[in-house]
Amino acid sequence: MGGGQLARMSAAPATALGIDFRVLAAEPEESAAQVIHDVVLGRHDDMEALRRLADGCQVVTFDHEHVPPAHLEQLEAMGVAVRPGPSALFHAQDKVHMRQALTDIDVPCPRWRVVEALDHVEAFAEEVGWPVVLKTSRGGYDGKGVWVVDDAPAAADVLSVPLPAGAQWLAEERIEFVQELSAQIARSPHGQAVAYPVVRTVQANGICAEVVAPAPGLGAERAVEAQELALRIARDLNVTGMLAVELFDDGQRLYVNELAMRPHNSGHWTIEGARTSQFENHLRAVLDLPLGSPAAVAPHAVMVNILGGDVPDLYSAYRHVMARDPGLKVHLYGKEVRPGRKVGHVTVVGNDLDDLLARGRHAADYFTGAIDE
Amino acid sequence: MGGGQLARMSAAPATALGIDFRVLAAEPEESAAQVIHDVVLGRHDDMEALRRLADGCQVVTFDHEHVPPAHLEQLEAMGVAVRPGPSALFHAQDKVHMRQALTDIDVPCPRWRVVEALDHVEAFAEEVGWPVVLKTSRGGYDGKGVWVVDDAPAAADVLSVPLPAGAQWLAEERIEFVQELSAQIARSPHGQAVAYPVVRTVQANGICAEVVAPAPGLGAERAVEAQELALRIARDLNVTGMLAVELFDDGQRLYVNELAMRPHNSGHWTIEGARTSQFENHLRAVLDLPLGSPAAVAPHAVMVNILGGDVPDLYSAYRHVMARDPGLKVHLYGKEVRPGRKVGHVTVVGNDLDDLLARGRHAADYFTGAIDE
Repeated sequence: MGGGQLARMSAAPATALGIDFRVLAAEPEESAAQVIHDVVLGRHDDMEALRRLADGCQVVTFDHEHVPPAHLEQLEAMGVAVRPGPSALFHAQDKVHMRQALTDIDVPCPRWRVVEALDHVEAFAEEVGWPVVLKTSRGGYDGKGVWVVDDAPAAADVLSVPLPAGAQWLAEERIEFVQELSAQIARSPHGQAVAYPVVRTVQANGICAEVVAPAPGLGAERAVEAQELALRIARDLNVTGMLAVELFDDGQRLYVNELAMRPHNSGHWTIEGARTSQFENHLRAVLDLPLGSPAAVAPHAVMVNILGGDVPDLYSAYRHVMARDPGLKVHLYGKEVRPGRKVGHVTVVGNDLDDLLARGRHAADYFTGAIDE
Repeated sequence: MGGGQLARMSAAPATALGIDFRVLAAEPEESAAQVIHDVVLGRHDDMEALRRLADGCQVVTFDHEHVPPAHLEQLEAMGVAVRPGPSALFHAQDKVHMRQALTDIDVPCPRWRVVEALDHVEAFAEEVGWPVVLKTSRGGYDGKGVWVVDDAPAAADVLSVPLPAGAQWLAEERIEFVQELSAQIARSPHGQAVAYPVVRTVQANGICAEVVAPAPGLGAERAVEAQELALRIARDLNVTGMLAVELFDDGQRLYVNELAMRPHNSGHWTIEGARTSQFENHLRAVLDLPLGSPAAVAPHAVMVNILGGDVPDLYSAYRHVMARDPGLKVHLYGKEVRPGRKVGHVTVVGNDLDDLLARGRHAADYFTGAIDE
C-alpha cells in the first residue's frame, strides 16, 4: 500500500525472489508505479481500492503509515493477512498511542504529556524545562508536524495550527542528544527476528540527511542495548516486517523518539552494505519466510540523501558523479525535484569512514547543485 | 530486445539509476515481462515490433543474440542507437564470422575449419586428431548446436542434422582444458572499458552449472592475459556494453571458445559479489555513461545455477534453504520448471571458498530436488 520510493526499492528483492509484487499507487507517475509491473491505481483511504489491491494477494504491507486503521481492520475481517497488523501499526500511526504503549512496557522515552491548551504546555514546561517539543499525534512525517518551542508565545503559535483529523497535541521533553540513532530489526509472524547494526542518523530541518553504519563511537554494549530495545518493542507490540526505532543518545542513556513499521530511510544503506537488505527482509518477514542475515558486508557504510535543490534534471549529474567515483552507488526515485524533497540517495561502503563521508556528501551535493565540481 | 532472465535482472539497476527501461517480449509470461512496467509484446524477428520497441528509446540493447542483423541495420538507418552495433554483434551471432575475425587479429582460438561434408571433417581430424567439435555457426545456445564427435560415423550422424537458416558447419579442434574461464569486460562508445575478475566456469551437459570468482589457481599473470585479451577483442570488434569471452585454459595457453555481447551467466555473481553488477555496467556502457567499478567486494564468490529438476514449485524450497543459510542470495527467474532449464541461481560471497561451494551447491541441489535435506 503506497507507491513511494520504499515500494520502488522493494521491487528488486521481490523480483529476485520471484515474489509477485503489486503496488497501490494514487497516480501512475508515483515512484513505484513507474517501475513495477502490477500497479493498482487508487487512494490509500479508499476501501474499494484497498480491496482491489488485496484481491489475490497472500499478504498486504505498507510503504507509509497513512492507511486508516478501520480500513485495515475491515481487510483483516475479510481474511486478508495485513502485516504489520492494524493494532501493531497503530503505534506508528499515532504518537500518543505509541508513547503510552512504550511507557506501559518500561521503554525509556522523553517525558511526555497530552496537552490541549497553552496552560497545559506551560505546566509541562515547568516540570521538564524549555524548550519543549510539540507534535501532532498523527499525520506528521519528515519533520512536518513537529515543532521545538522556546517559550509560551511560541507554543501558542503552534497550538493555533489546525490539528489533522483524530489528532491530539503531544508535548515532549527535549533531549539534549549527542547523536541520533536508528535500531532496525525484522520480525516474522512466527517470531523469528534479526537485528541490523545500529546506525547514526543525521537530520537537517527534520529530514534525514545522512546515515552512518555502524554508528561511530557507540560501543558494543550500547549498540546491543539499542538492538535489544528494538527487539523487545517488536515482540511486545507484535510487529511483523521491518521495525525502525529512532533513538536519542544523550551520552548516558537511550530514549525512543519514533517508530516506523516498514523499510526506513535509516536502512537504505543495507542495499549494498548488508548481506540482506531491509527491503528483502521486510518481504521475507511479512511472508513468514526465514529471515536473511543482517550482517554488514564492509566495516563502514555511508548513505547520503539527495534532497531536491536547484537542478531539476538529476540525470545531468551522472557523467560527473560516475566518472569521479566508480564505486559510488546511486539510487534515484523518479520523483519530480522540489526543494528539500527526498528524490534519491547515494551509498558508499568501505574501510575508511572519512573517505566514505566525503565521497557520499560530494555526490549528493553535486546532484542538488550545491557544488558544481 | 528479449524478455529473458538477463532483461529481468537488468530491471534492478535500471530502477536504481532512474533509467526508463522497456522490454520486448514475445509473451506476457516471459521472465522479464512479469516484472517490468513497460513491456512491448512482439517477436524479436518482427521488424514492426522492433520499431515499436525503439520508438522513444535513446538506446536499444539485447537479452539474446537472435535478432536478425538486417533488422538491426534497418533500425540504425532510422537513427536508432543499437548497442552493440549490428556489425559487432554479428560476431556473437555467427561462429564462423567470429572465428575468422579473431584469427584475423591474432587472438588464439582452437584450430577451426568450415566443413560441408564428411570428407572435410575427416581431413580436418587428420590434422588435429579425434575427437572433433562440430558446431552450427548460428542458432546454438546452452550446449545446443554443439557436438563432440569421436569418429567419422559419429560426425556423419551430426552432419545429417538440418542446419538453421544461414548457418554453416564449423569443425573445431577439441582443447584438452584444465579449466574453462570467462573474462568479462564492459566497454562504452567513447571507449572507456573495465575488466571484471576472471572467473572459472563449470559446465555440465553444455550448460553452465557453476561459476567461481575469481578463478582459483589462475595466477595474476594469466588473469591479466585473459583480461587484456577481452579488452583487445572488445576494442578491435568495436563492442559496446558487456562482453563475455569464454576461454579454454589448457594449463599452458588460453584459447577463445565463445563470445557473448550482453550480460552473461558467468557474471551473475557480480550482483552481490562486485561493486557494480554486470547488469548495471551493461546499462551504463550502452548509455555511454562512465562505468562503475568492477572490483570484487569479497575474496570469493560462488554462483550455482538452479537447473530445472523434479520439483515444479521452487518456492516450496524457500523455508529450508533460507533457514539453513541466512547469507545465501536466491534469484528465481519466474520460468516454468523444465528438466535442465536455467530457472534461477544462488550466490554466496565470503572468505572460505570450500564453504561457499558447499553452500551454493547444497541450495541449488535442494531447489531441484536432487537432495531433500
